[in-house]
Amino acid sequence: MWQERLERQMRFITEIDRLKRIFRQNVVIGTTENENDAEHSWHMAVMAMLLSEYSTEKNLDMLKVLKLILVHDLVEIDAGDTFCYDEKGLEDKAEREKKAAQRLFGILPEEQAQEIFEFWREFEELETPEAGFAACMDRLQPLLLNFNTAGHTWQKPGVTSEKVLKRNRLLEQHVPELWNFARKMIESSIEKGILKK
Amino acid sequence: MWQERLERQMRFITEIDRLKRIFRQNVVIGTTENENDAEHSWHMAVMAMLLSEYSTEKNLDMLKVLKLILVHDLVEIDAGDTFCYDEKGLEDKAEREKKAAQRLFGILPEEQAQEIFEFWREFEELETPEAGFAACMDRLQPLLLNFNTAGHTWQKPGVTSEKVLKRNRLLEQHVPELWNFARKMIESSIEKGILKK
Repeated sequence: MWQERLERQMRFITEIDRLKRIFRQNVVIGTTENENDAEHSWHMAVMAMLLSEYSTEKNLDMLKVLKLILVHDLVEIDAGDTFCYDEKGLEDKAEREKKAAQRLFGILPEEQAQEIFEFWREFEELETPEAGFAACMDRLQPLLLNFNTAGHTWQKPGVTSEKVLKRNRLLEQHVPELWNFARKMIESSIEKGILKK
Repeated sequence: MWQERLERQMRFITEIDRLKRIFRQNVVIGTTENENDAEHSWHMAVMAMLLSEYSTEKNLDMLKVLKLILVHDLVEIDAGDTFCYDEKGLEDKAEREKKAAQRLFGILPEEQAQEIFEFWREFEELETPEAGFAACMDRLQPLLLNFNTAGHTWQKPGVTSEKVLKRNRLLEQHVPELWNFARKMIESSIEKGILKK
């Protein structure tokens, strides 16, 4: 019995290796190579470890935060990375990702599948302090990378400072000092001409 | 004051982006591209989330485990990846990595630098149940990848099944069921001819 259980777990662990080849819109600093979801998830997790003091919620469950972050992008293995400023792509994102969650998490033993599904849903719904904080890391991490790569993603059609501000505004509520920092990066990017006003 | 603190944290977070370009000996499944340390750390962290039930220690501090894993390879940003079967490289590994830890973690505010330094040391020393479990994930993750990439790393000079067994033997003490699983993968790899006896 535990043998079948372990085999399902190992099958899942092997399958999610594919997250390392799901590429994002931004590039790794100092390169012209797109970052992938595994790298992004790791970076967000370390950020969360270091920046939790800025949360307005003083009793964050940090184990929960890290788990939410580590699995938040797994559905993109099937559903692909949807560019956050692509309105067309966002239309059917929820449906594509739900299907992906069912197939992918379904590889796991049932109660673990359920647990990971709940983590993914919690992250998406943004209703707990842990999900709010984790989602702020998901905004701040690419902002920091774009700031350090001459606004790589911001050169794509349709991206303006207004849209970047709107997307990052989530920080104001959960991590106000980081929101100030983010605003300064955005203002400085406009001044440098790497982000269109 | 908090402004300088935050700037140090952000400088560190920017600096560690480089972990994404520290390449390991093994390749990503289905590719000929070497895995990097950020991908490896993420993969290990998800494995730890899913496999903690196999630990002989029933009260593992999982937040500690995840933190140990997330930062365990950071020193390789300066010290590089040392191949675990490279006896020459292993000679001065400790010294190179200590120097790296001092420079890199020193970017952070002092008490955070100390905290990350302690996490790194705890992982290296293998003396707590959390470090033991985390280190088992560090063995099992590349084993799983090599098993699924026709023994990519195992084709390098000097690698034999004896050495691979010896390296993975740590699992016997901390996660005996996973040790059984690992042994079966190793035996099957010898049979398939992807690992030299």
